[in-house]
Amino acid sequence: MQSIWVINGPNLGRLGTRQPEIYGTQTGGDIHAVLQGEHPQWDIQWKQSNDEGEIIGWLHEAIDGAIPVVLNPAAFSHYSYALRDACAMVTEAGLPLIEVHLSNPAAREEFRTHSVISAVATGVIQGFGADSYRLALAHITAR
Amino acid sequence: MQSIWVINGPNLGRLGTRQPEIYGTQTGGDIHAVLQGEHPQWDIQWKQSNDEGEIIGWLHEAIDGAIPVVLNPAAFSHYSYALRDACAMVTEAGLPLIEVHLSNPAAREEFRTHSVISAVATGVIQGFGADSYRLALAHITAR
Amino acid sequence: MQSIWVINGPNLGRLGTRQPEIYGTQTGGDIHAVLQGEHPQWDIQWKQSNDEGEIIGWLHEAIDGAIPVVLNPAAFSHYSYALRDACAMVTEAGLPLIEVHLSNPAAREEFRTHSVISAVATGVIQGFGADSYRLALAHITAR
Amino acid sequence: MQSIWVINGPNLGRLGTRQPEIYGTQTGGDIHAVLQGEHPQWDIQWKQSNDEGEIIGWLHEAIDGAIPVVLNPAAFSHYSYALRDACAMVTEAGLPLIEVHLSNPAAREEFRTHSVISAVATGVIQGFGADSYRLALAHITAR
Amino acid sequence: MQSIWVINGPNLGRLGTRQPEIYGTQTGGDIHAVLQGEHPQWDIQWKQSNDEGEIIGWLHEAIDGAIPVVLNPAAFSHYSYALRDACAMVTEAGLPLIEVHLSNPAAREEFRTHSVISAVATGVIQGFGADSYRLALAHITAR
Amino acid sequence: MQSIWVINGPNLGRLGTRQPEIYGTQTGGDIHAVLQGEHPQWDIQWKQSNDEGEIIGWLHEAIDGAIPVVLNPAAFSHYSYALRDACAMVTEAGLPLIEVHLSNPAAREEFRTHSVISAVATGVIQGFGADSYRLALAHITAR
Amino acid sequence: MQSIWVINGPNLGRLGTRQPEIYGTQTGGDIHAVLQGEHPQWDIQWKQSNDEGEIIGWLHEAIDGAIPVVLNPAAFSHYSYALRDACAMVTEAGLPLIEVHLSNPAAREEFRTHSVISAVATGVIQGFGADSYRLALAHITAR
Amino acid sequence: MQSIWVINGPNLGRLGTRQPEIYGTQTGGDIHAVLQGEHPQWDIQWKQSNDEGEIIGWLHEAIDGAIPVVLNPAAFSHYSYALRDACAMVTEAGLPLIEVHLSNPAAREEFRTHSVISAVATGVIQGFGADSYRLALAHITAR
Amino acid sequence: MQSIWVINGPNLGRLGTRQPEIYGTQTGGDIHAVLQGEHPQWDIQWKQSNDEGEIIGWLHEAIDGAIPVVLNPAAFSHYSYALRDACAMVTEAGLPLIEVHLSNPAAREEFRTHSVISAVATGVIQGFGADSYRLALAHITAR
Amino acid sequence: MQSIWVINGPNLGRLGTRQPEIYGTQTGGDIHAVLQGEHPQWDIQWKQSNDEGEIIGWLHEAIDGAIPVVLNPAAFSHYSYALRDACAMVTEAGLPLIEVHLSNPAAREEFRTHSVISAVATGVIQGFGADSYRLALAHITAR
Amino acid sequence: MQSIWVINGPNLGRLGTRQPEIYGTQTGGDIHAVLQGEHPQWDIQWKQSNDEGEIIGWLHEAIDGAIPVVLNPAAFSHYSYALRDACAMVTEAGLPLIEVHLSNPAAREEFRTHSVISAVATGVIQGFGADSYRLALAHITAR
Amino acid sequence: MQSIWVINGPNLGRLGTRQPEIYGTQTGGDIHAVLQGEHPQWDIQWKQSNDEGEIIGWLHEAIDGAIPVVLNPAAFSHYSYALRDACAMVTEAGLPLIEVHLSNPAAREEFRTHSVISAVATGVIQGFGADSYRLALAHITAR
Repeated sequence: MQSIWVINGPNLGRLGTRQPEIYGTQTGGDIHAVLQGEHPQWDIQWKQSNDEGEIIGWLHEAIDGAIPVVLNPAAFSHYSYALRDACAMVTEAGLPLIEVHLSNPAAREEFRTHSVISAVATGVIQGFGADSYRLALAHITAR
Repeated sequence: MQSIWVINGPNLGRLGTRQPEIYGTQTGGDIHAVLQGEHPQWDIQWKQSNDEGEIIGWLHEAIDGAIPVVLNPAAFSHYSYALRDACAMVTEAGLPLIEVHLSNPAAREEFRTHSVISAVATGVIQGFGADSYRLALAHITAR
Repeated sequence: MQSIWVINGPNLGRLGTRQPEIYGTQTGGDIHAVLQGEHPQWDIQWKQSNDEGEIIGWLHEAIDGAIPVVLNPAAFSHYSYALRDACAMVTEAGLPLIEVHLSNPAAREEFRTHSVISAVATGVIQGFGADSYRLALAHITAR
Repeated sequence: MQSIWVINGPNLGRLGTRQPEIYGTQTGGDIHAVLQGEHPQWDIQWKQSNDEGEIIGWLHEAIDGAIPVVLNPAAFSHYSYALRDACAMVTEAGLPLIEVHLSNPAAREEFRTHSVISAVATGVIQGFGADSYRLALAHITAR
Repeated sequence: MQSIWVINGPNLGRLGTRQPEIYGTQTGGDIHAVLQGEHPQWDIQWKQSNDEGEIIGWLHEAIDGAIPVVLNPAAFSHYSYALRDACAMVTEAGLPLIEVHLSNPAAREEFRTHSVISAVATGVIQGFGADSYRLALAHITAR
Repeated sequence: MQSIWVINGPNLGRLGTRQPEIYGTQTGGDIHAVLQGEHPQWDIQWKQSNDEGEIIGWLHEAIDGAIPVVLNPAAFSHYSYALRDACAMVTEAGLPLIEVHLSNPAAREEFRTHSVISAVATGVIQGFGADSYRLALAHITAR
Repeated sequence: MQSIWVINGPNLGRLGTRQPEIYGTQTGGDIHAVLQGEHPQWDIQWKQSNDEGEIIGWLHEAIDGAIPVVLNPAAFSHYSYALRDACAMVTEAGLPLIEVHLSNPAAREEFRTHSVISAVATGVIQGFGADSYRLALAHITAR
Repeated sequence: MQSIWVINGPNLGRLGTRQPEIYGTQTGGDIHAVLQGEHPQWDIQWKQSNDEGEIIGWLHEAIDGAIPVVLNPAAFSHYSYALRDACAMVTEAGLPLIEVHLSNPAAREEFRTHSVISAVATGVIQGFGADSYRLALAHITAR
Repeated sequence: MQSIWVINGPNLGRLGTRQPEIYGTQTGGDIHAVLQGEHPQWDIQWKQSNDEGEIIGWLHEAIDGAIPVVLNPAAFSHYSYALRDACAMVTEAGLPLIEVHLSNPAAREEFRTHSVISAVATGVIQGFGADSYRLALAHITAR
Repeated sequence: MQSIWVINGPNLGRLGTRQPEIYGTQTGGDIHAVLQGEHPQWDIQWKQSNDEGEIIGWLHEAIDGAIPVVLNPAAFSHYSYALRDACAMVTEAGLPLIEVHLSNPAAREEFRTHSVISAVATGVIQGFGADSYRLALAHITAR
Repeated sequence: MQSIWVINGPNLGRLGTRQPEIYGTQTGGDIHAVLQGEHPQWDIQWKQSNDEGEIIGWLHEAIDGAIPVVLNPAAFSHYSYALRDACAMVTEAGLPLIEVHLSNPAAREEFRTHSVISAVATGVIQGFGADSYRLALAHITAR
Repeated sequence: MQSIWVINGPNLGRLGTRQPEIYGTQTGGDIHAVLQGEHPQWDIQWKQSNDEGEIIGWLHEAIDGAIPVVLNPAAFSHYSYALRDACAMVTEAGLPLIEVHLSNPAAREEFRTHSVISAVATGVIQGFGADSYRLALAHITAR
């Protein structure tokens, strides 16, 4: 069964507990269950790390396994050129890498309006809460 | 039957003829047909204008008709604060307004990396070609 | 009877319905009635357009008719150099052109703090709600 | 009799003598006389200081006396955050504080286009010569 | 007979009446007559609009008719990315699009030193008064 | 008995009356009493001025008297290079000068994030309300 | 016994060995001993990591344990928005998070004058050497 | 016979050999021959130097000889204020100085979008290959 | 006997005691004595104030008395637009106002490289220690 | 035998597989073999990590072991001030730390033109492919 | 007899003929004669070049001859870091190098407000016409 | 015998005499001797000029002679786009052009951190004193 990796960046392990008015009340596990339930023919894996290096490693593995990636880079969006380089390697390898955000960064603090990841992503989906993930998967599974 | 308006900004009347390597070969009519076919229970209307004032007027009508909006603002993204104000009126009225782009502006010229619309949109979907519209509609019709 | 034109920019046709906590509950018609009532010896005309080109055309007509102008450029303030050029033609012709704003742009979003119109206007009045128009007319009719 | 304070910033004690083509030929006393004559039911006080600290003190007194303020901050507009804080205290206290300028700063040197005061003022009136004061008083006395 | 379109942006309908010391005393009609007279074997069409959307539409028509374009974008030069996109479509289609300005923007206000159109134009001619048009036509007709 | 001067900048004479949700309800006198009570072996002097020049004079006196300084520069933080030079003279003289702020400027308006004083201060303490003063004194008296 | 965590960012494991003229000769262990000695009724834990992800994890644990935090983010101050988000979660949870620096960043290289952490910290103490920690603890234990 | 000087800046001695896809295959001699051929009644002199000082000297000579100038400043456009001053002296003397560029700098690297020469030139012609020179001469000889 | 006023800004009352390696060991009185000694036929008055408003007042008096001014604005150079306006009034009145600095601001901190006064001064002399004053007087007395 | 550490930053574990037209076809192992082969009298150790904290730790170890360092910081160049601080500790300790890059960052994206590491490195070598490492070793071993 | 070199940058060979309202009517020879006449005991040499390299060479010679320098860098002020380096070598050698300007650059175009030379000059004198040279020589000869 | 040209920019003729703590005590001749000695099979030519135009000419000759270039552009690095264009012509011709610097510009003044040459160089070597040249030659001769 073909895998899709949903990779989540720093602080997203607290989903469902932090500022629910912005990020919603669903935990990562909740969202994962919904995603897997909607795509039983795919092996959806939910990964989260606060560690830039670990996420970069996962992206390298995704390349080796030819695994499409949905990435919520969280605050790494704003400065991690190392993560950007790894993302570029994914899309250069012909794999989709979709950047998602739960909230709409453009509607928040100024520094959140710029993502160093977007330029190398296949596409970007932001502002739909957990639905941002669902739309990303809808796109990948329908290719 | 409830309407959804898919509003397209300047130069998008040339879809399918301009730079197909960036924008794809589908015309607006083609995309509309796909969208309407996927959502037969909704009245999907495809609108296009090169005229900032006309699009603003449509957004006012959408508010009066309580019609959800998918907006591809094209180059108006980069400077039309007048359009932004109209978009803000849509979301202030509690209606979804989803900003879509066929290509990923972050991967193109520098001036395209900033959208004055995004901060007042419900969410943003960019980089998936005609699929950007499909994902936006999937979100609206599933609310 | 000498005319004065009160020209309103994009989205101001929604006055009285949009965000009354910022813009007040009076419609354009309400304000016009007050203004005309206070200046029965003048023909006060209230014009509104979402269309940059149409407003530019009105300003050209004002020059030909030697008609003083009160202009609420709304969001065009922030980028319409075309409107600026037309406004400059009005003041170069020796006619007053007063820029008004209902709210105080300096107290709102950063991008609203700069008006490309102000440098070519006779003067600027902002922050007094509908009274901004009344003060502008008081100045013009007392010249 | 209720007071209104018209407070004038640095170099405005030279009104009527400096660059009359920009600032007009009326002295502060002349303008005061016009203002008081138009509003005999108010006690209009004309104050001028080149001293930032003295003006801040006057604003504190205005708060204690619940006195509306018309302020021509002159060059303090461009950098005096201390004056800004004092002005904010006036409007936070529910009193009107109207920023006026004789000339239109937007039409002069680049550094004059930004006022640190405007964001905390009730409103701004600029470019009408001595009439800027008259319009400000018209607004206050008509509240 | 092959056409060439000379398209003029906002406020250029006032040519000959506005600031003759900068823009000259010739009206658009005067210039057109000179141009047509010099190139009797071409159908020179003079178009002017204050409306961004209308000009964009003309550029689309020019593409369909394979018509070379001389464009004086006037103030649209400084912000109309929508017009830029339409111009890019003209040159991508292999047609010449020459940006002209009567005066030399680099010698005027700071904001006039940047044109968002130039990067997608075939070439730029500025500062020669009505001769800017003549030189542009000389180039096109000599290709 | 050795003195310590606690010098307060513009508008701080209103402490306890202005925006208590930001600045607290204690007056300068209240804070002084606490500080003096905690350090009976020191002569703690509380000074406040809205006048840049007067504060500069006090700093010169502090140098002559070898008196440690706690300085809340308030809005002078953001632009008074004259005050900065005087502060630099204090620390060059080997005396501690501690910059304190009641609130955390970094969490407020953008212009408050920069202090021209900090680079020449011994250290900075901000965000602890009246406790900012207490911590500064704790440091000085424990040297 | 209630804990307080003193968390130290990258390179601070070398305290006491690196540039003693800037950072002092005390090791982390030395400082910890002083702090614990002064607050025997609290369990002061000294933590240090060069790893952004590990520090973020500690902050999450601090939230779960309701543990006040003193954070010396070292160079992470200047770019780690991921750390900022974690710090914001601490203060949103109602816990104090005090940013400390041994030296005064404002007095060093330009890039050190901006901390992305400060805006979400309870307060900031910088420039007092090891005393920066002592003052932070004094504040926390006295609440 | 009246002279016109066509002055070429650094690296233009390599015309015809460098990057012909950008600069064309004609050498300076080739272009000169065309220009002279088209204007037999003028003495067209082709000058080229890599030396800023030498070109400045030529411009001084042009003033003394009342000789119109066509100048391709090449990379000097972007920084040579010394050349700018010399060019200003030419136009102040009432002589035409036309800045030409073979390619369209606005369509190339960012640093090429600014010319310090343009503000003091009579006019600018760019993007027409060797035709840029021909158009400039057409203008001068037709005055 | 004709007067010349040598006006000194904030902190310059400490001349001779502060950082003699930068500012020299002469006090203001010492320098004054030298200046007066060199120009016995003039009444050289040495004035110093830390107070912006007081210096502005002196400049107004200088205008009324037609007194040439040598001004060392010290740190006011960098932000006091109020002082700039007063200086401009001096030179507009046809009197010389020479800005002097003991040290060379361009060789010190970045913020010292910009003076808001210089643009309205007759001339600027900086970097010669007390000799900066002597050169300024030499110029004035030799006019 | 004296060691030299060749430390490689994020994504460099993929050398030889990623974009060979930019980075070459040699793997890290290949390069290491060449380096070791050329310097048999030195113990060349090749290290790679995607983890900022791990690399910082290695640099601390290098200081303790007095081991010269060749560092390819990859994307960490552009933002890791934590790594910069660790590098500064190496060179402060009198050890060489040579920054190398396979490609020439100045010839790539804009954000790659700035390295926060270079200011504290002994020297920089970029653009020579694997030869960048060889040149760095040549320098170290020849000291 | 000791020499002093007065070195003049580009376009200054035209002194007396260019814009006499700005630069005065004296030629370089006129000024030289005045200077030499006032200082008969010195060998004042007047040098002028439009060539950056030649001026750099003269500065090297000045160092070898221990010759004080008065330098009017003209437009080289704004960009010639090569000249700056040479000037720095003069002052590092303990020789005075005084930067002079005839007019006051701060009162002219924006780009003239920055001199890359000033930071390495002994001092700067600007705005006094030919007197700028005289004051510079007065300083040098009086040392 | 194949040549290599080592071209040195402004002020480098003073090598060995200027600031030996930064640039070392070796003269250009000393370095040349070392380089030639190490590469007896190559004709190493050492060239130096303070003249931008002369260096550009040498680069053109290098192209014609197919001669590899080592270039120390010195201060021309920071602004000479003319030199950049010539360098680009060298590398476009398939010849190596290696930019070298004796010191590490990134560790010096801010303006030295940007080189306009680097983007068109084959590679860059900086910070190794005279060894920068040796490493560059090592690379060229080993190709």
